[in-house]
Amino acid sequence: MRIIIDAMGGDNAPDAMISGAVLAARELDAELVLVGRGAEILQALERQGMATLPKGMEVANAEDVVEMHDDPATVVRKRRDSSMVVGLRMLAEEKGDAFVSAGSTGALLAAATLIVKRLPGIRRAAMAPVLPTASGRCVLIDCGANAEVTPEFLLQFACLGAFYAKRALGVQDPKVCLLNIGTEDTKGTDLQRQTYRLLQGLGEKGVIRFGGNIEARDVPLGGADVVVADGFSGNVLLKTMEGTAKFLTQELKGVFLQSPLTKLGALFCRKGIGALKAKMDYRQVGGTPFLGITKPVIKAHGSSDAVAVCNAIRQAAEAVRGDLAAAIEAHLDEITVPKESDHGA
Amino acid sequence: MRIIIDAMGGDNAPDAMISGAVLAARELDAELVLVGRGAEILQALERQGMATLPKGMEVANAEDVVEMHDDPATVVRKRRDSSMVVGLRMLAEEKGDAFVSAGSTGALLAAATLIVKRLPGIRRAAMAPVLPTASGRCVLIDCGANAEVTPEFLLQFACLGAFYAKRALGVQDPKVCLLNIGTEDTKGTDLQRQTYRLLQGLGEKGVIRFGGNIEARDVPLGGADVVVADGFSGNVLLKTMEGTAKFLTQELKGVFLQSPLTKLGALFCRKGIGALKAKMDYRQVGGTPFLGITKPVIKAHGSSDAVAVCNAIRQAAEAVRGDLAAAIEAHLDEITVPKESDHGA
Repeated sequence: MRIIIDAMGGDNAPDAMISGAVLAARELDAELVLVGRGAEILQALERQGMATLPKGMEVANAEDVVEMHDDPATVVRKRRDSSMVVGLRMLAEEKGDAFVSAGSTGALLAAATLIVKRLPGIRRAAMAPVLPTASGRCVLIDCGANAEVTPEFLLQFACLGAFYAKRALGVQDPKVCLLNIGTEDTKGTDLQRQTYRLLQGLGEKGVIRFGGNIEARDVPLGGADVVVADGFSGNVLLKTMEGTAKFLTQELKGVFLQSPLTKLGALFCRKGIGALKAKMDYRQVGGTPFLGITKPVIKAHGSSDAVAVCNAIRQAAEAVRGDLAAAIEAHLDEITVPKESDHGA
Repeated sequence: MRIIIDAMGGDNAPDAMISGAVLAARELDAELVLVGRGAEILQALERQGMATLPKGMEVANAEDVVEMHDDPATVVRKRRDSSMVVGLRMLAEEKGDAFVSAGSTGALLAAATLIVKRLPGIRRAAMAPVLPTASGRCVLIDCGANAEVTPEFLLQFACLGAFYAKRALGVQDPKVCLLNIGTEDTKGTDLQRQTYRLLQGLGEKGVIRFGGNIEARDVPLGGADVVVADGFSGNVLLKTMEGTAKFLTQELKGVFLQSPLTKLGALFCRKGIGALKAKMDYRQVGGTPFLGITKPVIKAHGSSDAVAVCNAIRQAAEAVRGDLAAAIEAHLDEITVPKESDHGA
C-alpha cells in the first residue's frame, strides 16, 4: 500500500505533516510519499533530527502550494504544480492508493472530484467524519460539502456511509438513520419525507439497515452507526458537538481550579479525565474522508499536529482496505434513482 | 400580573404543574390561574398537604385535555374544552397576561396562533429557547416551529429575538448572528445569503446589531446573544447541545466511579460539578417562549418537574415585563419586506 501525503497543506505544514508521517511509517505497513517542496521537506526532517528520509518514505517534488483563500473552483487550473494537485494526479494515475491533505477543504473536494473523479453513478462526493458517541463511534454524512441536496443525493450518502462503516470501520450491520427534527415519518421538510421513503425502500431491499429518523439529541448518545444529513444541518451537528464539548471542558477546568481541594480531586481523576478528553479530541479521530470519490481522499483538520496527521494516515490505510468502490459498484442499480424524484421537482 | 397555567399538560401533570405553581407563587408577585379538571387539581393539592388553594392562586375549570397524539391543526376545534384551549382563550380575552403549558408543542403553537393571534405584520411565530453558553446565555430563534422558512421570516425572527433578549432578558445591545456553515457572506444556501443581506440592512438602520454569520461551534462558546436559524437547523443545534452535554455528563460520571480514589476526587469537586450540571439542565432555563404571538406563551418541557415549571412561570413573568408587542410595533416598517424576496422566488 502506498499513501500520498500533501506535505504543504495545513496550518502547521510542513513540520506537522512530516512528523506525522514519520509516526505513521513506524506503525503502518505502507509506503508514504510526501508531496511538496523538496528542499523544505528535507529541512523539516533535519529539524526533527533526521539526516535522510526514513525507510519506506519518499518525496515527490511540487513547487507550488494551495492557499486558504484560493477559489476552490480554479485550483486545478491555477495551482497545477501545487502539492495538492500533484498529489491527487498521482492518486488518479495509480501512483498511490490514498491521499491525505490538511489543506483547504473546498479546494481538496473540488480538485479530488475533478482529478480523481466520482464513483460511477454517484452524483456528489460527501464529507463523512467519524464522531465519538456513547456507544462507540458513528459516521456522519454529509457535514458541509453539499449545503443543498436532493433525496437522491441523500440516498447515495446513506449507502456510502453504510459501506464505509461496514468495510473501513468494521461495523457488522450498521444502523443507518436520517437526521430529522422528530422520529415520525411525517417530520421535517419535503426533503426528509421523500428521503425517508427512499431509504425505507433501500432497507426493504436489504442494501442498508434503515433505522428511521433520528433526532440530533440521540446522535452523541449513540442512536445510530451512520447519520445521513444534508451538508448544512450535518455541519451544524458536527460543529455544535465540537463547541459544546469545548465549552464543557472549559467549565470543568474552571471547576477543578476552584480551590486546593478541587485541584487535588482533579488529580485523583486525572487518568479518566485525560481519556475522556482524548475521546472528544478531533486529533484522535484523524481526518474526514470524502466518500464517493474513486479512491480514498482524507481531509485532515487544518490545525492538525503530528498525532492528528498520523491518525489521518491510519484512516487512509483503513479506507484502502475497505475498498468502498467495489461495494458501491455491487449496488449501483439500487442507489441510482430517476431524476424526477429530485428535491423540489 | 396574572399568569395562566395549563394544569393538565405534560408528562407529570397535574402534580408537577401544581407544585411548580406553588413554588412560583411564593417567589413572584403575580396571581396564578390553574386551568384544568377542578377535582383533580384539588386532589393534587391535597397530595401535597394543602387543604385549600394557597393565596394568589385560582382554579378555572376545563374538563378536557389535549393528548400528545392529537393533530395540532384540529385541537382548537376538537378539544375546545381542554385546559390548553380554555387557557389560551382566557389569555386572548385579557383574563391573564401570559400562558404556560407543558403540553404538546405543535398543538400549543397552532392553538396560540389561532386564538391569541400573531403580532401585526409578523408572518410566523417562532420558538426561542434560551441556551447556556460560555459567556452567559443566548437566545436561539427558531428551533423547530418552522422547518421551512423564507428570508423574511428570518429577518423577523432576528428582530423578535433581539427585542426579547433586550427587553425580557436584559441584554443591553444584543449581538444578533445568522447560523451558517462559515462566516463569509457567500456561505450557506440562497436562504442564508439572502437573509444575510436583509440583516445587514437592518443593522445599518440600527434596528438590530448584526454580527454576521456564526458557525455552530461558536454558539455554545458564547459568540452571539441571539442566533437566528431556520427551525430545522436550529432544532439540530439545540438537540445536539442537549445530547452532547448528556453524553459528556454520563462519561464524566463513569470517570468519577472508576475507583475509590476517583470517588474521593469527585467528592472534592462536588459543589462545582453540581453547579455545572445545573447550568446545563433544561429545568433551570424554564421553558421556550413562542415569539411573534400578541401575548407571552411559554412552552415548558414535556417532562418538567416542579422546579422546571416554576422557572417557566418566572420566564412568563419576565416576558410580560418585556412587552415584546410594543417593541415590534415600533419597528413594523423595517421588519416587513416585499413578498418577492421570499426564499426560492
